[in-house]
This record gives sequence, structure tokens and C-alpha cells, in this order.
Amino acid sequence: MLTHLTIALDMMGGDYGPRSSIPAAVAAVNQNDQLILILCGNEQVIRDGLDKLDSLNHPRLKIHHCHEVVTNCCEPAQALRRKKDSSMRVALDLVKSGEAQACVSSGNTGALFFMATHVLKLLPGVKRPALISAVPTETKDPVYLLDLGANVFCEPQTLFQFGVMGSVVASRRLGIERPRVSLLNIGSEDIKGHEGIKQAAELMKKCPQLNYIGYSEGSDIFSGKAHVIVCDGFVGNVALKTCEGIAKLIMHKFTKALKKHLFYKVLAFLLRPVIKKLYKRVNPDQYNGASLVGLCGIVVKSHGNASKKAFLAAIEEAAREVERQIPEKIQAAFERIGTATTTSPSSKVD
Amino acid sequence: MLTHLTIALDMMGGDYGPRSSIPAAVAAVNQNDQLILILCGNEQVIRDGLDKLDSLNHPRLKIHHCHEVVTNCCEPAQALRRKKDSSMRVALDLVKSGEAQACVSSGNTGALFFMATHVLKLLPGVKRPALISAVPTETKDPVYLLDLGANVFCEPQTLFQFGVMGSVVASRRLGIERPRVSLLNIGSEDIKGHEGIKQAAELMKKCPQLNYIGYSEGSDIFSGKAHVIVCDGFVGNVALKTCEGIAKLIMHKFTKALKKHLFYKVLAFLLRPVIKKLYKRVNPDQYNGASLVGLCGIVVKSHGNASKKAFLAAIEEAAREVERQIPEKIQAAFERIGTATTTSPSSKVD
Repeated sequence: MLTHLTIALDMMGGDYGPRSSIPAAVAAVNQNDQLILILCGNEQVIRDGLDKLDSLNHPRLKIHHCHEVVTNCCEPAQALRRKKDSSMRVALDLVKSGEAQACVSSGNTGALFFMATHVLKLLPGVKRPALISAVPTETKDPVYLLDLGANVFCEPQTLFQFGVMGSVVASRRLGIERPRVSLLNIGSEDIKGHEGIKQAAELMKKCPQLNYIGYSEGSDIFSGKAHVIVCDGFVGNVALKTCEGIAKLIMHKFTKALKKHLFYKVLAFLLRPVIKKLYKRVNPDQYNGASLVGLCGIVVKSHGNASKKAFLAAIEEAAREVERQIPEKIQAAFERIGTATTTSPSSKVD
Repeated sequence: MLTHLTIALDMMGGDYGPRSSIPAAVAAVNQNDQLILILCGNEQVIRDGLDKLDSLNHPRLKIHHCHEVVTNCCEPAQALRRKKDSSMRVALDLVKSGEAQACVSSGNTGALFFMATHVLKLLPGVKRPALISAVPTETKDPVYLLDLGANVFCEPQTLFQFGVMGSVVASRRLGIERPRVSLLNIGSEDIKGHEGIKQAAELMKKCPQLNYIGYSEGSDIFSGKAHVIVCDGFVGNVALKTCEGIAKLIMHKFTKALKKHLFYKVLAFLLRPVIKKLYKRVNPDQYNGASLVGLCGIVVKSHGNASKKAFLAAIEEAAREVERQIPEKIQAAFERIGTATTTSPSSKVD
């Protein structure tokens, strides 16, 4: 049982920066007595924000001034070299030094991925870190989808390792011993897809520690068929953002249709609780907090357009990962699987 | 103005085969006086099906008996070599010989793509055919998404050509002179994505005939920002199927939530027309009929799990493409663009 839990926050990232991160930080410490937050960013801006919320002297909110910000246009390698006093870098450094047990950022994904890999380093045997997130399904359990954008291309061995890491996360988060692991493909038959996917499938089939159930198609993601779905970062990112787009489209069309007649307008008013609940179930904000797994440390990536609620969800996610010891459990899984996953260990990030 | 329009149908493909294709064929000829359909497949099965619908002797429904079927497990190259009297192959042969002006199949996508390319051949200068489909947006116009699964990997030049072909389709279908063309990527900034995408973007920027507007993310697909969105077949297939999955999930959760209380049950009953209309707008059945473009002939691919309604939509789509002379217009566009797109013409399909 943890008595205290310290999380470093990059306060300046994302589309809204301190406008969402400050109220989220205040809400987080108010609802979790064990939480200490180190707020990395422009001191004056953070002080002003906290002051407005009557939280300037909160004993568990500590400000760490940084004079730089990693913007969305920063090239990852440049951000690493030049932005050593940025809020993103400092938050990662605090995890590296052990002052914080995890960090959260809603900044530039590429830069965060690159910096985190260089600062925290990969766990032994891990080829590439991956961005993983829970996605709602028709069942009570979500599905864990990875990679969501950290790696544009993935070798078969990398996809296999993502399966192992996803399996650890799903197992720890859902309390399931052998989560069902699947590969995202353009058909469920063995002959479908490209060579890389087929080779990854072979590696997964051969691994007794992995409960591999075959391919999934895009339409299977939400059925609950698998607990973990593996794909490369390009495909995962497009799939996740497509979901957001179509969810918004459906809500838009539904609201528009209801506004056409007074009768339906009244119905819409009566239906508000159901629609609100539904949106809560499919709204990405509720599932915010994708994590970078495979690193010697916990890094949670919040959406770039994260609201206060979404940023709060990301802080809560980081706290849960500390409690569930995700990096330690991934390391143990890689040790168990042994040579199968460690044929070419590398901490190179290109 | 066409007086008659002949379309060959592969009656045996897809999950439901003649169960959906026969009633769709009957409905199609009943609602379009100019349409003649050649029904390719098992004569006895088709005769029995038509008999049940009192349409056995319909003057514009002609049966062409074929004794083979291309199943979903068929490897594309094997299907081409061994299934010369299959319903899919015969439908394509009828287009090749000019007996039909277009064909429709809901069979194995890989086999259809491979067979169609070999039988009909590519238009001069076209490197690869692409599967294109209309997808609903928040605006009145749909967006044309390609490729949807015909090409797992695409070179930059191929993606560029998809932009040209998509632009022709959108222009002809929406009546817009310069449709907005975009590339699907994992971020909207110029630095995002892999080298192939960046090179394709350069080719599109340089082409004065193309109204290229930059990158789109998955969430932009449905916003109406672009009229044409280009991606490789793996990404496009996952994006499209993910849409189907999340639309089903939202409907499922909504219906479930409404069933929880009698009050909401009553509301749900009253809301039926709105929900029905909404589902009609986002239901893939309504947007069924992805086309293979870039070939010397019109081939419409219906969903594998196409219902009667969906197969009917695919037949209607084929008829519209004949009227709008899509292949001729694509050929003209490639001639106008000239050498930019024809640096390495090839009709090889691997």
C-alpha cells in the first residue's frame, strides 16, 4: 500500500495548456489524499491559475519553474537537444531521478516519445516503446489498443513485443490472467494482410505465455472479442482518431435530427440523461490517458485537445499505473519469455 | 443519354450469396427501366430464387450459368488461374468483351482486385487500381476515401495517382470542379508521418490540376474538410471498418440505455423514426458500393456481408458510374497531367 504518490505534470503542453492542466491538478489533489503533484511550467502562469482557484498554497501542489515549452511544430530530435529546460523534459527528468513516480503530458506526441525514450531508457529486451490506451467495447471491459502513434512502422518482432506488453497491461488493469491478444488486420483469414503481420502472428502463436486468438478487423475492435489489439502506430492512430470523428458525426446528426420538430425537441430534452451517459461511455475524454509502455518509468500521454476532465483522467491513469507496477510487471514478463523477445535488444530511437 | 445499360452481377459472392443478390437484382430492374442485368452464377439456384419472387421470366434478367465460385479462402493468384468459370470471373469477362458496361461483386476483395486487374487491365499510366467509397460527413456532401484495401502498401507516386483518381470521381459525383484533396496522416503538421506520405504530399502540391489542401487526421474524415482523402489500403480498410464498429457500438449502448427504464422505453418507441433516419445516414449499407478505379472498365465491390439493400445500392452505384463515364474521365485526367504521373507505368499486380 502506497502512502504517498508523486506525479510530475507537464503543465504547458496541448492545445489548452495551463487552462486545462491547472484545474485538473487542483481536482486531482482534492479527490486523492495520497497524491503529490509537481507542476512543471511557467511559474507565474501556474501561480496565477492556482490563485484563481484558491489553491495557491495547497501543500500537495508544488511548482517547478521551467522557462521553455515544446510546441507542436518542434521536431522530436530538436526538442531533445534544445529544450532541456522545457516543462516536458523537466517532468521526465523528475521521473528519471526518482523524485516523481510517473509523469503526465498532453504535449507533442513525437517529442514526448523521443525524449521519454532517451531520458528514461527502454526496459531490458524491449525494442520500442508503444502508446497504449483503453477503448470502450460492447462488453463491460475495454480493449487495450497499441500502438497509437509512437511508431509509424513496426517490425514483426516489435508487434510481438507490443502483444506481450499489452497483455501485461490488460492483465493488471482487468484482473484477467490470460487476456485475449489479437493483431489488427484487413481480414480475419490467415492469408490476409502483409508479410510483417503474418510473421508477427507466427511469433505470437509460438509464445505459450501469450493467449493469441488470431486477427481482428477494424469492426471487431469494439465487440470485446479481444482484450488487447496490436497494430503499428500509424494504423492505431488513424483508427483511434476515426472513432472520435464518427462518434462526433453520429452525435451531430442525432442532435440535428431531433431539432427538426418541436415534438422531437421535447423528446431530446427528456432524453438528456441517456444521451449524456452514452456520450460519457464513448467520449474519448473518459478514456483519456494513453501510456507509453516499455520504458523504465511511467509516462502518460493526455490528448492534445484534453479538457480539464480529460487531463484529470490522465493523472488518475498515471496513479493507477504506479499502484499496479506496470513497468516492473512488463520487465518480469520479458524475463519469463526470455530469448524469444530479446534477439536484438536495442535502445535506439530513430 | 443511354437507352439501355447492361450490368453483369456476380450472384454467388459474399456471406449471403444469392439470398441477397437475387432480391437486389429484381428490385434493381423494377426501379430502373433501362437496366439489363446478367446474373452470373449457378443457374438452378438463381432460377429457384427468381421463381420465388415471381420474376423467372423477367425480360431484363438474363442468367449466365457458371459452375464455380471464388470463396473467401481462395488465394487471389489461385482464383485467377483456376476459377475461370467462376461467377466473379465471368462477370469480369462480360465487361471485357463489352457485353456488359459494368459489373458488381460482393466476393473476396483480394481475388476481385487481382482478377479485375488481369482481365480488364489498367488505364494507360495508372500504376495500381484503388478501391474508393463515399463516406458520410457533417456536411451535405460525402467524402471519397481511397484506397480501402486493394493495396496494402503504396508508393508516394501511387498515393499521388489515387489523389488524381479520387478527384475525378468526386468531381463527377458531386459536380464540383476542383474537389479538395487531402492525405490521411497521424497529424496535420508538415513534419508528421513517414517519408512516403511526405513525398506524396510534395507530388500533390506540385500538381496544378489537383486542389491539394494538406494532411487530414482520422477525426477529420467526417468533418467535410476534404472531398477526397487518400491513404494506403491497409489504413483505409481499418479506418472504414472501425467506423462500422463504433457506429454499431454507439447504437448498441444507446438501445441498451433506453431499455433500462419503462419511461425511456416509451421514448425509444416515439423516437424510432429519428433513430431509423440516423442509422440510414451512418449505416454502411447506404454507402455500399466501393468501386475499383484505374481499370479499363467499371467494377463495383459490394460489402462481403451485403444485405439486399446494400447489394441494390452497389448496382445503382455501377449504373451511375457508367452514366458518368468514370474510366474515360480518369484516362483524360492522366493524359492532361502527362509525364508527372507516368514516370513508371506498370500493369504488374503482385
